[in-house]
Amino acid sequence: MAFRTIDWIDGPGALRLLDQRRLPGQVVYLELETPDAVAGAISDMAVRGAPAIGVAAAYGMVLAARRGLDLAAADAALRLSRPTAVNLAWALDRMRAVWQADPSVAAMTAEARAIEAEDIAVNRAISAHAMTVVPQGRAVFFHHCNTGSLATVDLGTALGIIRTAHDSGRDVMAYLDETRPRLQGAKLSAFELLHHGIPHAIVVDGASAHIMRTRQVDLCVVGCDRVAANGDVANKIGTYNLALAAADNGVPFYVAAPISTIDMATPTGDAIEIEERDPAEILVLDGTPIAPPGAMALNPAFDVTPARLITGIITEKGILRAPYRDTLAGLFDADAGAVAD
Amino acid sequence: MAFRTIDWIDGPGALRLLDQRRLPGQVVYLELETPDAVAGAISDMAVRGAPAIGVAAAYGMVLAARRGLDLAAADAALRLSRPTAVNLAWALDRMRAVWQADPSVAAMTAEARAIEAEDIAVNRAISAHAMTVVPQGRAVFFHHCNTGSLATVDLGTALGIIRTAHDSGRDVMAYLDETRPRLQGAKLSAFELLHHGIPHAIVVDGASAHIMRTRQVDLCVVGCDRVAANGDVANKIGTYNLALAAADNGVPFYVAAPISTIDMATPTGDAIEIEERDPAEILVLDGTPIAPPGAMALNPAFDVTPARLITGIITEKGILRAPYRDTLAGLFDADAGAVAD
Repeated sequence: MAFRTIDWIDGPGALRLLDQRRLPGQVVYLELETPDAVAGAISDMAVRGAPAIGVAAAYGMVLAARRGLDLAAADAALRLSRPTAVNLAWALDRMRAVWQADPSVAAMTAEARAIEAEDIAVNRAISAHAMTVVPQGRAVFFHHCNTGSLATVDLGTALGIIRTAHDSGRDVMAYLDETRPRLQGAKLSAFELLHHGIPHAIVVDGASAHIMRTRQVDLCVVGCDRVAANGDVANKIGTYNLALAAADNGVPFYVAAPISTIDMATPTGDAIEIEERDPAEILVLDGTPIAPPGAMALNPAFDVTPARLITGIITEKGILRAPYRDTLAGLFDADAGAVAD
Repeated sequence: MAFRTIDWIDGPGALRLLDQRRLPGQVVYLELETPDAVAGAISDMAVRGAPAIGVAAAYGMVLAARRGLDLAAADAALRLSRPTAVNLAWALDRMRAVWQADPSVAAMTAEARAIEAEDIAVNRAISAHAMTVVPQGRAVFFHHCNTGSLATVDLGTALGIIRTAHDSGRDVMAYLDETRPRLQGAKLSAFELLHHGIPHAIVVDGASAHIMRTRQVDLCVVGCDRVAANGDVANKIGTYNLALAAADNGVPFYVAAPISTIDMATPTGDAIEIEERDPAEILVLDGTPIAPPGAMALNPAFDVTPARLITGIITEKGILRAPYRDTLAGLFDADAGAVAD
């Protein structure tokens, strides 16, 4: 990799983040030394992607410990930085279990490093399971937002599947939803696929049904910010529309979901809080207004895709199928057991 | 109206067009004196919207007659300027029927003026029929692209319905798909609704299903570029996705279609040529690149919404319902007869 999304600098104690707001034009790294700075980087989306946010928050707690700050207050600030992604809370819960028993810098650093290392392993396992449903030979994907190395510690979830398929010698092509308003598809996923030499075509978010009706698309792969107990999935706005396009055209729709994004305490998608962000994200693009002065906008950052539209949920323990209420529960009942591919 | 989309200047003989590429930032008018200049304005989208394109092309033929140019050559150039909208061909067919019998400037000007005047009357009739399906009291619309005064001579088709509902005293609110890549919703429809003081919210194209799942939306209204004999509708890219969002959420989906957009010679949507435009429309926004250098894009300008997703087609003669093959044919069999609302 020529870029690192997230890096812990042990000596001085700082979290180094690739500032994703500046990509693809500029590769700029931020060095953050306080938990408040990390919370700010999360809410401003300098770091984004549910897995990367979780790791960043874990290191935010390490920074709090190193600076001798109040750990409960740091935890609370980080928890509020984005409401929809559940593995932000999941990572902070893991850190809390450590610092409530042993608030030493050494113990907390070890836990954050473990979360970071597990993210890479989890992504590799997700990609390995996914290869069982990706066609041999020609494989045409449809992808939403950014779910690659820039959204995780490395490899990525859904984009990691595309990269793994390419690396395994399949003839890969990927349609990339540009993913308005912040254009993570055009700016970040295209950046990653170019970096790896993977053929792709950016399309506007409204084009997915037309593309699937008129061209070969073998499967959709998306990431997620939270999976409810019934299999409903919260993910970047536009995912539900993409799932409808896939269903209407008989294209399988897969969600790549680390188990840390599954929230059995949330019964259905209706219970997931959907973050609404500044309308300026829609009305102003890279500093240029695109709408007339006085125009109003509404900017929900996520949507909920109903479980009935999802062909499979690809976790590090295997691919779950409907009925999701049962297969998701089974994942936690069995704990360490594998599920069928 | 403080702006005029299209105006014929009789003295010197020129077509005045509001340059829609400069809106909403600048109100600039072009004065065109040759059919080639009109064809260029259509293909570059200085003028857009199927009805406005038809009227512009008709005056393009008048300019050819005034300049003593070859009428068949002018007709051919204008016909090629955009492939998907059928009333471009419809208007040129009407003009040809005139100039093949009487190629005088007077006869051709009269026909172009008639097409222009009919557009306003047709739009008023469409809006009047639509009022039978718009709720009294609170009426929340979802709209795609721009179909207002800027897409027609005046009033508009789908946006004309929204404006007419507002003017009739209903409590109107409209969600506007921003409509990437050219952002006609954010730039043009918001401009028109602001001008008329109509409450609205611009949303990204990927948000429609989420908005309909979580908020009141009473009906979708969209325009069209071509209606096939089976009721399939070609319209701005993203329309098919919006129709899927509506169907999944039980929201009625109406297409406002002047009869000039109905093409009984096209059996189904599969036979409609879909214009593919320059990928730069996606990759560069108002002069600023939004994707990394070397990224690829695919830019279909239209899509086809299957007839099964359409609740009704609102024409100037009434609202057609499924089975569209029969009701559309009935429109032409009966010729001048009214259809049931």
